[in-house]
Order: sequence, then C-alpha cells, then structure tokens
Amino acid sequence: MGVVKRILIVVAIAMAAVAVSAKDRGGLWGQRASLFELLPVDSTDIVFLGNSITHYCEWHELLGMQNVKNRGISGDVVDGFYDRLEPVVKGHPRKIFVMGGINDISHKLSADSVATLMANLLDYIIENTPTTEIFLQSALPINNDFNRFKSLTGTEQVVIDYNRRLEQLAEERGITFINLFPLFANEEGKLDPIYTNDGLHLLGNAYIKWRDYILPYVNR
Amino acid sequence: MGVVKRILIVVAIAMAAVAVSAKDRGGLWGQRASLFELLPVDSTDIVFLGNSITHYCEWHELLGMQNVKNRGISGDVVDGFYDRLEPVVKGHPRKIFVMGGINDISHKLSADSVATLMANLLDYIIENTPTTEIFLQSALPINNDFNRFKSLTGTEQVVIDYNRRLEQLAEERGITFINLFPLFANEEGKLDPIYTNDGLHLLGNAYIKWRDYILPYVNR
Repeated sequence: MGVVKRILIVVAIAMAAVAVSAKDRGGLWGQRASLFELLPVDSTDIVFLGNSITHYCEWHELLGMQNVKNRGISGDVVDGFYDRLEPVVKGHPRKIFVMGGINDISHKLSADSVATLMANLLDYIIENTPTTEIFLQSALPINNDFNRFKSLTGTEQVVIDYNRRLEQLAEERGITFINLFPLFANEEGKLDPIYTNDGLHLLGNAYIKWRDYILPYVNR
Repeated sequence: MGVVKRILIVVAIAMAAVAVSAKDRGGLWGQRASLFELLPVDSTDIVFLGNSITHYCEWHELLGMQNVKNRGISGDVVDGFYDRLEPVVKGHPRKIFVMGGINDISHKLSADSVATLMANLLDYIIENTPTTEIFLQSALPINNDFNRFKSLTGTEQVVIDYNRRLEQLAEERGITFINLFPLFANEEGKLDPIYTNDGLHLLGNAYIKWRDYILPYVNR
C-alpha cells in the first residue's frame, strides 16, 4: 500500500472519529452545553457535574442554596464532562461534586479506562482552578434485575473495580472521595429497589438520602 | 354480540388504557414526580411546569432567583402535568409558568383535545390555589427540516391552532397568555435553526431570549 493511500486511510479514520464525536455532542449534550456556556459560575458556587443521575435532581432546592448549580447531562460520559469544563473552571467555583462513569461502563469501557478518563478530568480541574475543592463521588450500585439497561448487563464488578480506582485517584491527588455505593446497595450489592424504578436512576427518597450524606461536605 | 361480551371488551380497553398510562408514569416521570413530592413549594415560589423544554433549563440560575423551581419532565404530556399538580398547588406558589402540549401533539392528539386537557389543568390550578398567578405560555414553533422527530411531521398547523385555543382559554379565565411562538419562529414559521440543534429543543441562546421576554412577568 502506498504512503498516500495510507495517509488517506488515516485521515478517513480521523474524520470518521470526528463525525462520531460530533454526533455524540449533538442533541441534549449540545443543548445543555450551550446553556452552560451562557450561565456564569463564580467563586461562591457549588457545582454538581455529572450524567443523568446528577441532571435529574434539583440540587439548589434539595440543598436550599441559590449558589448550587446543576451541570448534569443525561447520557454524558466522562470525556463529555471534560469537553464542557471550561465554563466551569474559569469561574473558579468553591466546590465541585463529580459523579460519572456509568455511561462509559455501559459503552463497555474497562474500569481502568474510565478511571484514566476521570484522572484526566480531575487533573484538568486541579490545574485550571486550584482553589476549587473537588469531591469525587463514587458510581452508584446498579440493579440489573429491572432488566431495563441491557448495556449494563454483567458490569456489576466493573462498577466495583472502578470505584476502587476512584478512591486511589482521590487519595493520590489529596481530594475527598465520597463513597455513595454502600448507601444505596442492598445486601446483594445491587441498587436497592426502594431507591429506583429502573435499576439505574434514582427516586426522590434516594436524593434526600444522598443530600443528608453529603451535607457536611457541602457546608464545611 | 352479547351484553356480557360487550362489557368485557369495554373493561379490557379500560385496563389496557390504565396499563399504558402506568407505563408512561414509570421511568423518568416516576423518578421526577417522586422527587417533586419531597421538595416543598411555598407561597414565595415561582414554578415552571412543563416537558423537556422546561426541564432542560436551569431556571433559578437563568433568573438569578432561589425561589424559582423547575417542574419540567422530559417527555411529559399535559395529563402527566395534571397527575403531579398536588405537591405544587398545596404550596400555593406565587406564580406558575406553564408550557406544554407538544408531546400530546406528537401523539397525534388534535389541537382541540390538547387544549381541553390544558383547560382541565388550568381549572385545577385555579380551583386549588386561587392566589397563584398563572402564566400560560404558548407552544414553541417546531422545525421538521431537522428530521429528528418523525412523530411531529405535519403537525405545524396543529401547533398554530393549539396556540390560538390557548389564547382563548387564557382570556376566558382572565389569566396571562405569553405568546413565545413569534419569538423563536423564522420567516417560514419554523423554529429558527439559530435556536435549536434538533428542531424541537432549545440551545442556550434561546433560553436567554425567553428569559428576557418573560422577565417583566416574573418580576411584576
């Protein structure tokens, strides 16, 4: 195969990757990210960064604080968080609570791969806004008995391994790791059916429990 | 056909309707509705009630007010709003901004049918919290050139007819109608592509424009 042909193939693959990426960034992601670019963040703010589990709550109401800002996007992956960090870090918020990775895991990434993406994200935040206190929240247990998210079938151990890696990442960087997993797991290690109606997302009672658990970190 | 058989058929249809309704109330609807039951509303609050177009915004940030509460659920229909009104009306909020109907229209309901459901909703609010000021917002234009929501194909005139009916409903009840349609329509009457990436949902710039337009109603 000639050099020109090889180069053309590489370019084609790169263009395809960009196209896929652009597609993933359309729809809801593009809508929310464009809103987040226009909503200012400042040094008194507490930002909740995440996927649907963060998105679907009303954090400022739950915590009773105007300066609490929801930066969740349903379906988002850790790399997606990264691509929309700029409007957050430039405001140098007081605190960032991060939760992510379950969508990456549903895309069949390994625990190590997702943890590496999360390490990247944390390092970007640390570098660009060193005054911000970061709280790294674990992934939550899932419950595949609901049989609603086929792409999560058999990923229970990945979630556990991923959370162990997150704990290490936090320790290495001197940031706070918040292990929410035991809070919501039943005796089988599954997301307790009292907290969910689909095995992945949370009912209101779970958000209350989550709030009560993180309140010391929010207020300190 | 015997009377018993006819009755059985009617019962079967009714049970099927309940089953469909129950299904619609699961997933995200059940998650958000259960949260909304636990988040208090009080007489200083301004509530934004609606579907995804309401849900996907951060209204308290956009308006810079802690007492602004998002009661949007992606995918919800007017009847779904009705079924979760209780925790809202019992708090006797100061104002409610309502927008809905586009999902009903996507389910092939006529303009008159959706308007009747909205009339029901308005009457429930008026009856249960007469101190609350209601702002009935029009449906927004759609843009089927994006070809993203097949169920909205050919419904452009339904949206226009529905908005006319909403204006009448508001007038009959002495409440404020806010016509957002012209704000976001291009010369062809379609949702202007500068405000959307899918022909239905809004980009950040649209929420800023919406905010600026309703600000006098929020503050008065």
